[in-house]
Amino acid sequence: MAGNIFGELFRVVTFGESHGPAMGCVIDGCPAGLSLTKAAIERELRRRRPGRGGASSARNETDEPEILSGVFEGKTLGTPIAIVVRNSDHHSGDYEDLRDLYRPGHADLTWEAKYGIRDHRGGGRSSGRETLCRVAAGAVARAFLAGYGISIRAWVSSIAGLDMPGPEAPDFDFDETERNALRVPGREAAEKALAEIEALKAEGDSAGGVVSCSAAGLPPGLGEPVFDKLDARLASALLSLGACKGVEFGAGFAAARLRGSEHNDVPVFLAEAGAGALPPGFKTNNAGGILGGISSGQRLEFKAAFKPTPSISKPQQTVDRSGALRELIIRGRHDVCIVPRAVPVVEAMTALVLADFVLLQRAARIG
Amino acid sequence: MAGNIFGELFRVVTFGESHGPAMGCVIDGCPAGLSLTKAAIERELRRRRPGRGGASSARNETDEPEILSGVFEGKTLGTPIAIVVRNSDHHSGDYEDLRDLYRPGHADLTWEAKYGIRDHRGGGRSSGRETLCRVAAGAVARAFLAGYGISIRAWVSSIAGLDMPGPEAPDFDFDETERNALRVPGREAAEKALAEIEALKAEGDSAGGVVSCSAAGLPPGLGEPVFDKLDARLASALLSLGACKGVEFGAGFAAARLRGSEHNDVPVFLAEAGAGALPPGFKTNNAGGILGGISSGQRLEFKAAFKPTPSISKPQQTVDRSGALRELIIRGRHDVCIVPRAVPVVEAMTALVLADFVLLQRAARIG
Amino acid sequence: MAGNIFGELFRVVTFGESHGPAMGCVIDGCPAGLSLTKAAIERELRRRRPGRGGASSARNETDEPEILSGVFEGKTLGTPIAIVVRNSDHHSGDYEDLRDLYRPGHADLTWEAKYGIRDHRGGGRSSGRETLCRVAAGAVARAFLAGYGISIRAWVSSIAGLDMPGPEAPDFDFDETERNALRVPGREAAEKALAEIEALKAEGDSAGGVVSCSAAGLPPGLGEPVFDKLDARLASALLSLGACKGVEFGAGFAAARLRGSEHNDVPVFLAEAGAGALPPGFKTNNAGGILGGISSGQRLEFKAAFKPTPSISKPQQTVDRSGALRELIIRGRHDVCIVPRAVPVVEAMTALVLADFVLLQRAARIG
Amino acid sequence: MAGNIFGELFRVVTFGESHGPAMGCVIDGCPAGLSLTKAAIERELRRRRPGRGGASSARNETDEPEILSGVFEGKTLGTPIAIVVRNSDHHSGDYEDLRDLYRPGHADLTWEAKYGIRDHRGGGRSSGRETLCRVAAGAVARAFLAGYGISIRAWVSSIAGLDMPGPEAPDFDFDETERNALRVPGREAAEKALAEIEALKAEGDSAGGVVSCSAAGLPPGLGEPVFDKLDARLASALLSLGACKGVEFGAGFAAARLRGSEHNDVPVFLAEAGAGALPPGFKTNNAGGILGGISSGQRLEFKAAFKPTPSISKPQQTVDRSGALRELIIRGRHDVCIVPRAVPVVEAMTALVLADFVLLQRAARIG
Repeated sequence: MAGNIFGELFRVVTFGESHGPAMGCVIDGCPAGLSLTKAAIERELRRRRPGRGGASSARNETDEPEILSGVFEGKTLGTPIAIVVRNSDHHSGDYEDLRDLYRPGHADLTWEAKYGIRDHRGGGRSSGRETLCRVAAGAVARAFLAGYGISIRAWVSSIAGLDMPGPEAPDFDFDETERNALRVPGREAAEKALAEIEALKAEGDSAGGVVSCSAAGLPPGLGEPVFDKLDARLASALLSLGACKGVEFGAGFAAARLRGSEHNDVPVFLAEAGAGALPPGFKTNNAGGILGGISSGQRLEFKAAFKPTPSISKPQQTVDRSGALRELIIRGRHDVCIVPRAVPVVEAMTALVLADFVLLQRAARIG
Repeated sequence: MAGNIFGELFRVVTFGESHGPAMGCVIDGCPAGLSLTKAAIERELRRRRPGRGGASSARNETDEPEILSGVFEGKTLGTPIAIVVRNSDHHSGDYEDLRDLYRPGHADLTWEAKYGIRDHRGGGRSSGRETLCRVAAGAVARAFLAGYGISIRAWVSSIAGLDMPGPEAPDFDFDETERNALRVPGREAAEKALAEIEALKAEGDSAGGVVSCSAAGLPPGLGEPVFDKLDARLASALLSLGACKGVEFGAGFAAARLRGSEHNDVPVFLAEAGAGALPPGFKTNNAGGILGGISSGQRLEFKAAFKPTPSISKPQQTVDRSGALRELIIRGRHDVCIVPRAVPVVEAMTALVLADFVLLQRAARIG
Repeated sequence: MAGNIFGELFRVVTFGESHGPAMGCVIDGCPAGLSLTKAAIERELRRRRPGRGGASSARNETDEPEILSGVFEGKTLGTPIAIVVRNSDHHSGDYEDLRDLYRPGHADLTWEAKYGIRDHRGGGRSSGRETLCRVAAGAVARAFLAGYGISIRAWVSSIAGLDMPGPEAPDFDFDETERNALRVPGREAAEKALAEIEALKAEGDSAGGVVSCSAAGLPPGLGEPVFDKLDARLASALLSLGACKGVEFGAGFAAARLRGSEHNDVPVFLAEAGAGALPPGFKTNNAGGILGGISSGQRLEFKAAFKPTPSISKPQQTVDRSGALRELIIRGRHDVCIVPRAVPVVEAMTALVLADFVLLQRAARIG
Repeated sequence: MAGNIFGELFRVVTFGESHGPAMGCVIDGCPAGLSLTKAAIERELRRRRPGRGGASSARNETDEPEILSGVFEGKTLGTPIAIVVRNSDHHSGDYEDLRDLYRPGHADLTWEAKYGIRDHRGGGRSSGRETLCRVAAGAVARAFLAGYGISIRAWVSSIAGLDMPGPEAPDFDFDETERNALRVPGREAAEKALAEIEALKAEGDSAGGVVSCSAAGLPPGLGEPVFDKLDARLASALLSLGACKGVEFGAGFAAARLRGSEHNDVPVFLAEAGAGALPPGFKTNNAGGILGGISSGQRLEFKAAFKPTPSISKPQQTVDRSGALRELIIRGRHDVCIVPRAVPVVEAMTALVLADFVLLQRAARIG
């Protein structure tokens, strides 16, 4: 389904322009009987909000969600769950001089080419603020997945050109991730990265980075061949984030340089599961937990690359609606690097994909 | 739509198991009035067939397509176009000893976990042979796109760990691509890569690689925000290929290390278009021709990483249906590297995505 | 797409329970550049509201719509249009004794069988109040269709067992329809019907009826064979209204009794179009303006039958959650006959179907 | 999904023109592990074939289905099931003089208006022969439903203006239905109707009729509110048959004339189920087994009205591609009345709808 709807059975529709009256989502297809509280949604929205760190914009939305439907006496009804968040902290005036300009690296030119009209205030519908709706919906999906023992966690594995410690590194500390403003899995690494971000901020420039994501507890069998493979749907979910420019699963691009004998994950007996367990354990996870588009029972592993924030305060050359070249100096509040805030968004999109596949899997066999 | 259907308006359904009676596709939604010949489909199927080079399997299917419907007196009717290709060159006996084994790196384990049953002969539905159907459908999409001046070309940019010359290199020669067995854009590079492939073959091992793709002639405006962005849909299309493990657009993963001032593509006047042309020209194409999920009028550029063929003739440890570890020696015919054959498949998937977006774009505005 | 989403390109999602915080809809796929005002939506919502006539309930919602997104400076952006209406006039206490009872003729039993949970207050999601969202969305579709010269009008052609004058009758007066509370096309007929309704009200009983609908200005070619025929989609739209029990197109059920030579509509030259015009005129319209599921250029004509309101104040036998038989006396406010209020809903659903087909038709041919 | 695809989870795609190389379908989403034989499909196709009775055309297709994929060692794989039937008995020459004529009551004019092109031979894609594909797919759906104890049976309840005995009539004999050429539930009634059909044939005229359908064994809970109600989807399925002009559920159009106190089905204890059983029994079935769009556990009951065959051998006035009026005498083989052959088609469409809802119901609740 084209447009603003995502998912087959566990579906979400998002709506809202950055400076319109409200943002929101409708979750259609969440099974009935799930315990759901407003607090669970607020918790995730809070994680997406601009932090105190130097990486984030100063826009100070309270992002208070209101559940308009679908929940009755603390449980989902099986009916659409509508969640609305008011846009309260407008500085629309900041954008008036952008009405006729197409900002470099933004969707201004392309949206206008497509629709012949655009809301120029804060990027309108193409604003990163739209991801708020995904996080709200993702919170519902996570509550659903928790009942299956499926958990998802993401972190910043590279930022501003600096690689952060990986899961196999001795100083990888996932618990640190939610403690520092950059969502980096290590205190020292976080400090180093923050210094780099502050330097970029001082120069009026911006940074990109990579988000790594890992999901545990997936039963084997999730994912729909042929076109709706688990990795295909996840890739689509991630690249539907405006700043995402690439995604890779397991060994990813590095796999293209391995030999078959190096890349194939070799089955082994795992002590915890015992001999003869199916699915078996594996020595490695080059596949990222997916074979032929279907979860294998191993941990799901992937990475998503995000470009640097296109809004920088350095003067830039751009073009206006008449085709004339113009100098642009962007004012207003902008994240130096959106990658830390992308972490809960990546988790949310992953949750939406997995929730959908859990439901689809129920239709795979007779009986 | 989950499963074996791809696309919203220009839709394709594929069917067939590798060793069943036939493979095929139904294209539903191809506009009426398009001139379409069987030869156009055969030409693309021939490009996907195993070549004479050392990289390909020896399976010798003639892959003769039959058009069963949807075309009348040389033109499409607007009705479903069914194309069937018989599976003629079965060596199903080669696979009998795989009935109870799960091959490493293959979808055997996961398909059986999902469905509780699988056709073990040649990978059944998860065989790479399924891509034949996509190529047939892609040939129809390409014929449609040709009427809009949209053309797509892909090539092997890295194989067996060797980087091939890129478009900016002096020895990049695209015309060479269809002349050598590896679809590498340069004669010397092809020879070097072929030697490496032959060496791997002698060792009973296999190789992966990267396919680069470029599409020209896209009008600005293709792609559907929010979830069905042009890059999101392409990523889904590419990762729906079983061996694909990653995809990146424009600067891709490298973008994550650039600063905003480096990554933003700067508009310039292009001599050929003249001053004031919209969309403008750009100094660079880090965006890969997509901004906010919508085509910008620049050339569409992306890469897809393919893992090495999991079927190798070296002995491997694997697991069987009872959970026991077993040694496996794969016999039968297998590509040392499927990446050259992936080139027409990547083009076909790109064509299917673009054809769909061309039709969807007709609904974007009033009038 | 299952559930609460309707349409392929011009899509609408509705949400809300009768006694929850709000009802609403999201229209996704309305083309950009359409002039749209809140007043256009209010006008249609007002037509759906309970009237002063004896047929309607006394629930007195103001039904003030708020447009949350998708419209900028008076024009649609091509982005989702979210419309919310608060539920203000709750008498939820009226329903407390229905928590464990399944009302006859209502969806109480079936929703609980499906979901294992239900919002018993006012029918929850299965309330007729859900149609408010359809009317709001339909108002947008009507604005879109107006640009194509397509107009839709419906009226009550039978109510409480009384047949109202048909279009060919001398006393058929369509302008009268919006003047009387029963939406009957004739003043005398309205009075007679109202007397019957008042009598039923006095007895604590209820009535059903038939809505006729006619749409003009359809170009030939609307409707998608094979499964999404114009009549198929309209039938689905109408029977998605809880009280609708049947639908017929053109001669409808009577057609089953005609001979081919009587039923085939004979082409003739119409004075206004002149000789040689295509599509031609026809002597009759037994086909209801549809041939093979595609609009013929004739007026679209169909009827929808609505059952009597199941909520009656007479004592009834029913069953409770424990399976015990119980006597039920329904209190609260209920329409004696919802058929007059169904008129704008039928028009709205027709508008949504036609808007979708107008967009789909743009993809039918090359060029 | 527009076009030639039907269903959400249990999906079917049909293809083929009446005089093209073949007709066929692809069933995508049939669960894995279902026992399926070619004989089950042949049996249903045989029921759809022209019979010996005077009502049917003399076209003598053998309609031999070939299963191309999706079944392995007698069981479904969970992969697409492609079924192809060759068109062998062409008399395309019979149609040459129809190339430029638009036949009254047929889709010639409308398809050409839509697509600008049509296959004029035997109605092309709009031929009733397309229903063959639905019957093949329906056979698979019926095999799936049998595992749930769901059975479907239809019969001709009215033909050529004559009402056949209803289920409550003493001379209703369902077993007789498959014994006589008209699929009428009573021997005497069949003879009377056949005489009428023969008389029409002699006059070169044709007849319509009504098919009644009843399905048993549905659990309560099937059907998806709001837009995809069980009756909405069935109505769409039935009106997607070219000759169908109306559909009604339970009391149907007659319900519009009843009072609420007459129409509400009153729950009672049924001896077989015992006191306290849920769902309860009901004194009547005016609802046709559906409340709020969801199955209630009662028998599903509905009727579909079919227009008389538009192809008659009497001379008719028509119009040609140039807009000129022309006299038309249709030659070739045509059913005097297609209603008896519509019986297995109605059953097939019902089976497809129910199979889809059985799968969708698995996603309704947590756990």
